[in-house]
Amino acid sequence: MCRSGTNPDSIAVEIDDTADVSAAPSAELIKELVAANQILFDQGVVDAFGHISVRHDKRPDRFLLARNMAPSRVTAEDIVEFTLDGEAVNANGRRVYLERFIHGEIYKARPDVVAVVHSHSHSIVPLSIVKGMRLQAVFHMAGFVGQGAPVFEIREAGGDATDLLVSNNMLGAALAKHFDGHDIVLMRGHGSTVVGYSVKQVVYRAVYAELNARYQLQAMQLGEVTFLTPEESAACVRNVEGQVQRPWDMWLEQARSRRN
Amino acid sequence: MCRSGTNPDSIAVEIDDTADVSAAPSAELIKELVAANQILFDQGVVDAFGHISVRHDKRPDRFLLARNMAPSRVTAEDIVEFTLDGEAVNANGRRVYLERFIHGEIYKARPDVVAVVHSHSHSIVPLSIVKGMRLQAVFHMAGFVGQGAPVFEIREAGGDATDLLVSNNMLGAALAKHFDGHDIVLMRGHGSTVVGYSVKQVVYRAVYAELNARYQLQAMQLGEVTFLTPEESAACVRNVEGQVQRPWDMWLEQARSRRN
Amino acid sequence: MCRSGTNPDSIAVEIDDTADVSAAPSAELIKELVAANQILFDQGVVDAFGHISVRHDKRPDRFLLARNMAPSRVTAEDIVEFTLDGEAVNANGRRVYLERFIHGEIYKARPDVVAVVHSHSHSIVPLSIVKGMRLQAVFHMAGFVGQGAPVFEIREAGGDATDLLVSNNMLGAALAKHFDGHDIVLMRGHGSTVVGYSVKQVVYRAVYAELNARYQLQAMQLGEVTFLTPEESAACVRNVEGQVQRPWDMWLEQARSRRN
Amino acid sequence: MCRSGTNPDSIAVEIDDTADVSAAPSAELIKELVAANQILFDQGVVDAFGHISVRHDKRPDRFLLARNMAPSRVTAEDIVEFTLDGEAVNANGRRVYLERFIHGEIYKARPDVVAVVHSHSHSIVPLSIVKGMRLQAVFHMAGFVGQGAPVFEIREAGGDATDLLVSNNMLGAALAKHFDGHDIVLMRGHGSTVVGYSVKQVVYRAVYAELNARYQLQAMQLGEVTFLTPEESAACVRNVEGQVQRPWDMWLEQARSRRN
Repeated sequence: MCRSGTNPDSIAVEIDDTADVSAAPSAELIKELVAANQILFDQGVVDAFGHISVRHDKRPDRFLLARNMAPSRVTAEDIVEFTLDGEAVNANGRRVYLERFIHGEIYKARPDVVAVVHSHSHSIVPLSIVKGMRLQAVFHMAGFVGQGAPVFEIREAGGDATDLLVSNNMLGAALAKHFDGHDIVLMRGHGSTVVGYSVKQVVYRAVYAELNARYQLQAMQLGEVTFLTPEESAACVRNVEGQVQRPWDMWLEQARSRRN
Repeated sequence: MCRSGTNPDSIAVEIDDTADVSAAPSAELIKELVAANQILFDQGVVDAFGHISVRHDKRPDRFLLARNMAPSRVTAEDIVEFTLDGEAVNANGRRVYLERFIHGEIYKARPDVVAVVHSHSHSIVPLSIVKGMRLQAVFHMAGFVGQGAPVFEIREAGGDATDLLVSNNMLGAALAKHFDGHDIVLMRGHGSTVVGYSVKQVVYRAVYAELNARYQLQAMQLGEVTFLTPEESAACVRNVEGQVQRPWDMWLEQARSRRN
Repeated sequence: MCRSGTNPDSIAVEIDDTADVSAAPSAELIKELVAANQILFDQGVVDAFGHISVRHDKRPDRFLLARNMAPSRVTAEDIVEFTLDGEAVNANGRRVYLERFIHGEIYKARPDVVAVVHSHSHSIVPLSIVKGMRLQAVFHMAGFVGQGAPVFEIREAGGDATDLLVSNNMLGAALAKHFDGHDIVLMRGHGSTVVGYSVKQVVYRAVYAELNARYQLQAMQLGEVTFLTPEESAACVRNVEGQVQRPWDMWLEQARSRRN
Repeated sequence: MCRSGTNPDSIAVEIDDTADVSAAPSAELIKELVAANQILFDQGVVDAFGHISVRHDKRPDRFLLARNMAPSRVTAEDIVEFTLDGEAVNANGRRVYLERFIHGEIYKARPDVVAVVHSHSHSIVPLSIVKGMRLQAVFHMAGFVGQGAPVFEIREAGGDATDLLVSNNMLGAALAKHFDGHDIVLMRGHGSTVVGYSVKQVVYRAVYAELNARYQLQAMQLGEVTFLTPEESAACVRNVEGQVQRPWDMWLEQARSRRN
């Protein structure tokens, strides 16, 4: 490994480049991660900000994430490998995301998690700032939202003067702890982080978490809302999420046709 | 016929392929159904989920529905024939929609119905989860919505632990019974199902049901709403729905130009 | 002239075709009306329904309006001439809009009016159905909305069982009377009709009436609203509407580039 | 200099053209300003109305602004130089924006300001007309909004009968005074003006001010809102606005691809 410092990435590269030659992630995984970046942008989940990572398929103590750039423009060459402490392994001096610690600390705390999306989608942010409000599953496509997603108030971990960014391991660990059995956490005044067991599933969840928030915001303006029961949520996760290939194929086609 | 089982489709094919040679649906009907899939996607009524069927023009005990796929990508080759029990006649091993029972049971219960759309459009879902709320006709394009569309609460038929999907004939029949003289039923936490007397009409209705929901949601936030009278609703159905060719032509042109 | 009847258009053609040879409208006016159709569609003011007319530049007792079709597809060949009673002069058997009487009766009642748009735009409809609500100018682009647009309740003129359409001269005259010094009238459960002194101005007004409605709906959900004073409205009409060429040029460019 | 009058622009040209030969702004700055016009349109911050200026890089007593035209169509040839009194230096008879005084008076009052955007974006206008409401920072991308943006009520400076436009230096100075340490001012029934220290930063701010307004409007309908603390706002400005190049590159790519 390498020590943290003012320029950890370039140092990390020198130490790790040799050690990791035999453990390159599968080309298929990289391709999927690139496609996911394009889909999340095309579906409006991320704009120039927000990111998706996947756990390295050969080394569970590593994850893959684009360098610091707009998701819509990510290609295979832009994917960087990170340690779970958020240190870049092969950035080669390229800038990396300030909030990579979200991903590393979740992979540390949740060995079951394979992929992570952090975003600021349009209905999640307003929901995150209403006092006492919690995102809760309202329709069958979003069973994974469950019975009230926790809200991460960064002031509890970082005080009243942060920039709201999860920009170090301490804050990342505090966020990871908030999951507490849930698969999505809202971040007050910031957005959300959602986890999944594959790239395709976590993309599906990020898209439908936004829709769940949108529907919940609209419905709560008109009266009392019927949420899914815990058993309905669980059944929806089991049965509906088996269909993720269908939207994935369509979203990818759309993202690529709109790009050209 | 064929028995239900773990792989009913492939069995169905062996039995029925011979029997039905002389009764192929008209090519025009298939073409219309394919166009309808593209329009419903382009108009935002369906995303990767949702489906439209039409009753077979030669055999009223059969209906036509795409195989399990995103509506935007459906072609004539993807249309599968089903019995009213939801058994595929010529799927040839292709996967079919879990919720085909919605269609079959409605065609059984409503001999007048020629076409059915099931969707999760953006303003219908929030309306479906507000306790005590009913979709009701608010403007002249949506007279068919009438004086308060019934809401199908799947818990009454399937208990508190379903995945909300209408995935068997019992649930399909329960839904079909809810129509009770209406042409649209909302499904709590799920979406809606709308019926019509032609493919073009049911597409028109699915588009304008969504708009009716959107306007109703907006208006009810500001005060008491004037709904159509029953007589106004009936007059709108008689006179406005005679115009369905006009939007159909335009929507088809739009869907095709945006696709290429 | 010609008598009303089951097929007035074809009769009208036979009588009027000769009489009008020397009074063709200017090609420029036709071109402008075609462009207006495309802009209104591209800006979302009309969908497959809604229409725009202009008073004939050579004969103030005639107006020009497309035949019954989606506005987005109108070309110069589709423009039909009508008497102020809504009788087609040169339809040559082509179908015409059911609601042409809106236009004719306004041109009769308001000799100052040069152009009329009737539409069902997305924020106007909900505003039209909230009891006691009136559209009122909230920003400088929509001074013409003034101090509370009248709402036309068709039940007062046509009873409780109409299809809400202004489908004869009696209803058209009742609507025209509602203007009463205003330049826009909302139609309950239907949409609005706006008038102007040129094609470009009325298109501008139809676009910004929709925006005024949208902003007013949003603001009224949060508290008491500051509307424009009558003097501010008048000053905005005088000064801002002098700029209509600027949006016109841009909208036309957009409409044409999105069409190809 | 030149005197104000009925046709100040052409007069200004005659006097200033010789004097300024050696002080042309850098080509890079012009290019950036043209790109900013295209981005602001493509991102929906401006429509045919609204404008962006930048202070002249060689002469702090001058600023650059497009001639009177839709922002989406601006090219390098359309950029005009103005004195801080809003007099055109090289308009060569081309029409200029009625509200150029917004820009000049801000550059006078705030020597630190390098760029100014004035716009009527869709969530800012409704927020500006709700009595007692103030735009306040609700998420980390909009720290610059701070603890409640001032609202400019033009009636205080111009009386109850203006057209709401800031069409002379007196009104421009009154607006500039409202900034009072803030970087954005809302204008009742009109829009907003936001300032920054570079073209890229002010474009970023105009985009995210609109999003902040949108989220705040949605959240306030549902309950009490948690705003950023003053320290959080300041930290967000310091750290998040360092990233402006990332959205700029993406927005420019989008604007250009959607244009062709």
